[in-house]
Amino acid sequence: MSSRAPASSRDNGGSRIVVVTDHPWPDVEIERSVLARAGLELRAGPGRAGTAAEIETLVARHDPVAIMTCWAEVSARAIALPSELLVVARMGVGLDNIAVAAATARGAWVINVPDYCVQEVSDHAIALMLAHWRDVVVTDRASKQGVWNPTAAVARRVRDRTVGIIGYGRIGSTTARKMARGFGCRVLVNSPGLLREHGAGHELAPGIIVAALAQLQEEADAIVLHLPLVDSTRRLVDKKFLAACRRKPLLVNVSRGGLVDNDALVHALEHGLLSGAALDVIEGEPAPPLSVIGRADVIATPHIGFLSDASVAEVRRRSCEDVVRAVSGEKPRNPCNAPHARVASK
Amino acid sequence: MSSRAPASSRDNGGSRIVVVTDHPWPDVEIERSVLARAGLELRAGPGRAGTAAEIETLVARHDPVAIMTCWAEVSARAIALPSELLVVARMGVGLDNIAVAAATARGAWVINVPDYCVQEVSDHAIALMLAHWRDVVVTDRASKQGVWNPTAAVARRVRDRTVGIIGYGRIGSTTARKMARGFGCRVLVNSPGLLREHGAGHELAPGIIVAALAQLQEEADAIVLHLPLVDSTRRLVDKKFLAACRRKPLLVNVSRGGLVDNDALVHALEHGLLSGAALDVIEGEPAPPLSVIGRADVIATPHIGFLSDASVAEVRRRSCEDVVRAVSGEKPRNPCNAPHARVASK
Repeated sequence: MSSRAPASSRDNGGSRIVVVTDHPWPDVEIERSVLARAGLELRAGPGRAGTAAEIETLVARHDPVAIMTCWAEVSARAIALPSELLVVARMGVGLDNIAVAAATARGAWVINVPDYCVQEVSDHAIALMLAHWRDVVVTDRASKQGVWNPTAAVARRVRDRTVGIIGYGRIGSTTARKMARGFGCRVLVNSPGLLREHGAGHELAPGIIVAALAQLQEEADAIVLHLPLVDSTRRLVDKKFLAACRRKPLLVNVSRGGLVDNDALVHALEHGLLSGAALDVIEGEPAPPLSVIGRADVIATPHIGFLSDASVAEVRRRSCEDVVRAVSGEKPRNPCNAPHARVASK
Repeated sequence: MSSRAPASSRDNGGSRIVVVTDHPWPDVEIERSVLARAGLELRAGPGRAGTAAEIETLVARHDPVAIMTCWAEVSARAIALPSELLVVARMGVGLDNIAVAAATARGAWVINVPDYCVQEVSDHAIALMLAHWRDVVVTDRASKQGVWNPTAAVARRVRDRTVGIIGYGRIGSTTARKMARGFGCRVLVNSPGLLREHGAGHELAPGIIVAALAQLQEEADAIVLHLPLVDSTRRLVDKKFLAACRRKPLLVNVSRGGLVDNDALVHALEHGLLSGAALDVIEGEPAPPLSVIGRADVIATPHIGFLSDASVAEVRRRSCEDVVRAVSGEKPRNPCNAPHARVASK
């Protein structure tokens, strides 16, 4: 295959380079080993995600055929720099930190690993809901100060709760099943696709019911966001959204910080429109405002919904394997774009 | 019925008295109203549980026909004091704070409300497990200090965990079902009755398997205690028990503090035999040692497993209704003893 030939402009003896922009795990040995078996050489940025400009510098220095990113922004500029770019890989699910259109325009695949952490994110959302309803986090904070006061606690029977889930992809449907089958909750689920295909009121499975957004806002005791961040979902949870919530729900965000307007959230908490918020993602990461995460009525975890020993090993291995496929001229297993120019040239 | 006649020794104008020793809820209006409809007069101790001696003084002062307790100890002395005692009621499940034999000997019923908080305690055990496996409590503590560090987190995929449950009554079986059906976990369950009736290895339901204690200690990633505190279970979790745990499990206690030896627990945490402990009950309550609840690897909630708005309303109403039955000479709905002398005399 012609795509195996080294680009002539490279000054590294012919090895083709893969840049890993950032990695929240301690080393890149799994990545290095999978890529090396395919004759690819890895160059890693620092563990922590750099700025878009820092990534551009990194890419310019190494002239890679593939860019792999965890959290760092891969800008249109970074994508324009390499002499031959075959693939941009997200070592995760969401694509909001990749200039997908720029990659498509120059004929590079954009790939992800859409299903490596479905269980983890869903488990995380449920862990946050239960922590709130059983008052685990707030009472543990008191215990750490030596305070043992059961009368100050506020706790709920989970089975009696109505759970509202916005977004019904792999993760949303998994959370719905766990809450309905495991706990016997009534679960209202919302997505444009569900409303189009089934209509409001349709029972997808025992206890899992399609609902319009307005019904979900009126009846849910927790509202869980299982949505990608795209133009149509950006700041979905704003002042108007929150004002329509009727049962003082818990807001759970395990998807992307940009889905929620932080100022509107703080306003809603201060005015008793919400009983709390449980956030694994917050606009302003990796330094989210203390005015949000420092609040007593907010449970905040540092974007670890995707994380487990199993999921991290899986995403590292599978994303590298798919990069190898793309660089070898095969169609990747998880393409997120259709770089037709390139496909047509084969 | 003769038992309706006022005792001659009473100086309160003939009303029959019910003493409520303690109440962790803010008032006793539900109790007063149910009892008053049956012509019974309520006298309440302070909200917080007094000592055994304080309860004896309270009982001596009011000469009740019924004693209702939440957490306060109702001693054999307290039970001996009233001129006519018909019933001692636990406003809860466990009877370890009531001198049951003394009540039986003088012909008084001992009653409880065995099933009012099955969902709550089971939900609480699961909330604690998930909080540990998704690292919610520890990372939230860091967030409150403005620290946002995903790389320090340790999280697990719940479905891959093996959950060990010791005790398979109403609550134990409910937790088992939720973890197996909801999360797809492998659940090992242990009780003398299960081993006798089914034997180790028997699959009670999909994913719920009877196991000997040794197998559970070897294979469980969490060990959940769903047991009453009786002589045979006191300090079940001691140094020897913990030394036999092989997978660094999380220890979850939502039953009674006396099941666990605090010194052995701290030793096990310090020597890496456990990955953590999640405790809703701790020996030393209501002032458990800070050397246990202050530890970073302990999640501690202040004995609120039973608690919800629904469960508290239910236990208050139902315990009073059963006291009314017993005082009226009917057989109570939830008798925990067989006060034969009295039954025979009817």
